[in-house]
Amino acid sequence: MSAPEAKRLGILLFEGVEELDAVGPWEVLSWWTANFPEDGYAATTFSLDGAPVRCAKGMTIVPDHSAADVGPLEVLLHPGGRGTRPQMVDPEHLERVRQWRRDVPLMTSVCTGSLVYAAAGLLAGKPATSYRNELDTLAELDPTIEVRRDDRFVDAGDVISSAGVSAGIDMAFHLIVRLVGVERARQVRRGIQYDPEPPV
Amino acid sequence: MSAPEAKRLGILLFEGVEELDAVGPWEVLSWWTANFPEDGYAATTFSLDGAPVRCAKGMTIVPDHSAADVGPLEVLLHPGGRGTRPQMVDPEHLERVRQWRRDVPLMTSVCTGSLVYAAAGLLAGKPATSYRNELDTLAELDPTIEVRRDDRFVDAGDVISSAGVSAGIDMAFHLIVRLVGVERARQVRRGIQYDPEPPV
Repeated sequence: MSAPEAKRLGILLFEGVEELDAVGPWEVLSWWTANFPEDGYAATTFSLDGAPVRCAKGMTIVPDHSAADVGPLEVLLHPGGRGTRPQMVDPEHLERVRQWRRDVPLMTSVCTGSLVYAAAGLLAGKPATSYRNELDTLAELDPTIEVRRDDRFVDAGDVISSAGVSAGIDMAFHLIVRLVGVERARQVRRGIQYDPEPPV
Repeated sequence: MSAPEAKRLGILLFEGVEELDAVGPWEVLSWWTANFPEDGYAATTFSLDGAPVRCAKGMTIVPDHSAADVGPLEVLLHPGGRGTRPQMVDPEHLERVRQWRRDVPLMTSVCTGSLVYAAAGLLAGKPATSYRNELDTLAELDPTIEVRRDDRFVDAGDVISSAGVSAGIDMAFHLIVRLVGVERARQVRRGIQYDPEPPV
């Protein structure tokens, strides 16, 4: 569908990733890029070694790529989930995140993905958010972060963080606004009929 | 997490299933059943032959079970996606759906999943909905259906249909209300921070 020179939006998958953290944005971004290849973007998924991952609630997803073969990314999305707990204290993962920061123009996170970014130093001096229950952890990891407690997502320029789980869907629409424009985001919103009406 | 006698909520996966149609409800239902096993339900996924499926936008998901080994279901969820087009005219699939109807107390659908139900005769004389762009198809497939054009989901007793893609999330919360109660659904809503604020 996409031209080989399409700019890549890469969603990281890992053991214990929360399913909707990854698949919510995936639906928004892949619906967009599949229906509007002329925009020049392609959505893809990758895990470090390219092997299938078992998500936090037990679903197994097969990534498109490994980190080694995913190619240059324009945007990287780091989801959350209980799999971020070991990542936050894994020097190898944190160094990897810092390397991505150097290579990738726009780093984004969903839910506790921002805790990993905070631990890697990516959010120093910036506004950011995270899963509601982990906002204090975010502040503790890096007291220079301006924690935004009430935002669905926070666009700090070269890094965008979002609140818990389903907030990644809202953030993904913002991403389309930023990369293409409001009208395109509205087209995708109509496409996936995103007119939420929580019944409780 | 769940007792062996837990009642099963089964999400059908198939080639060309729309990712969020399946994974939106999966997140809601699996978050619930994993955190409240005492309610006596377990969420699971299955494909007909148990093999991984390639979804509509290219994501590959590995199901937990095949149709043969998923066991008795309390609730079946039939997602939509372009994979429903061949299903709607496949006598074998339609007979399978009718057999599920006989075996499963509560049949539910997301997006164009309701077109398959309509083609199988499950919605005769009932109110129902579908993906916004396919509401006329729903009416054509079975003129006895009372098409509800403005509802996120329609609970017709032993069958619940929902609107397009993201509407499955709202429907899944209704399912928790129906099976357990409003307070439990609110707990899950808080858990996945489902306070949507579409930015466009």
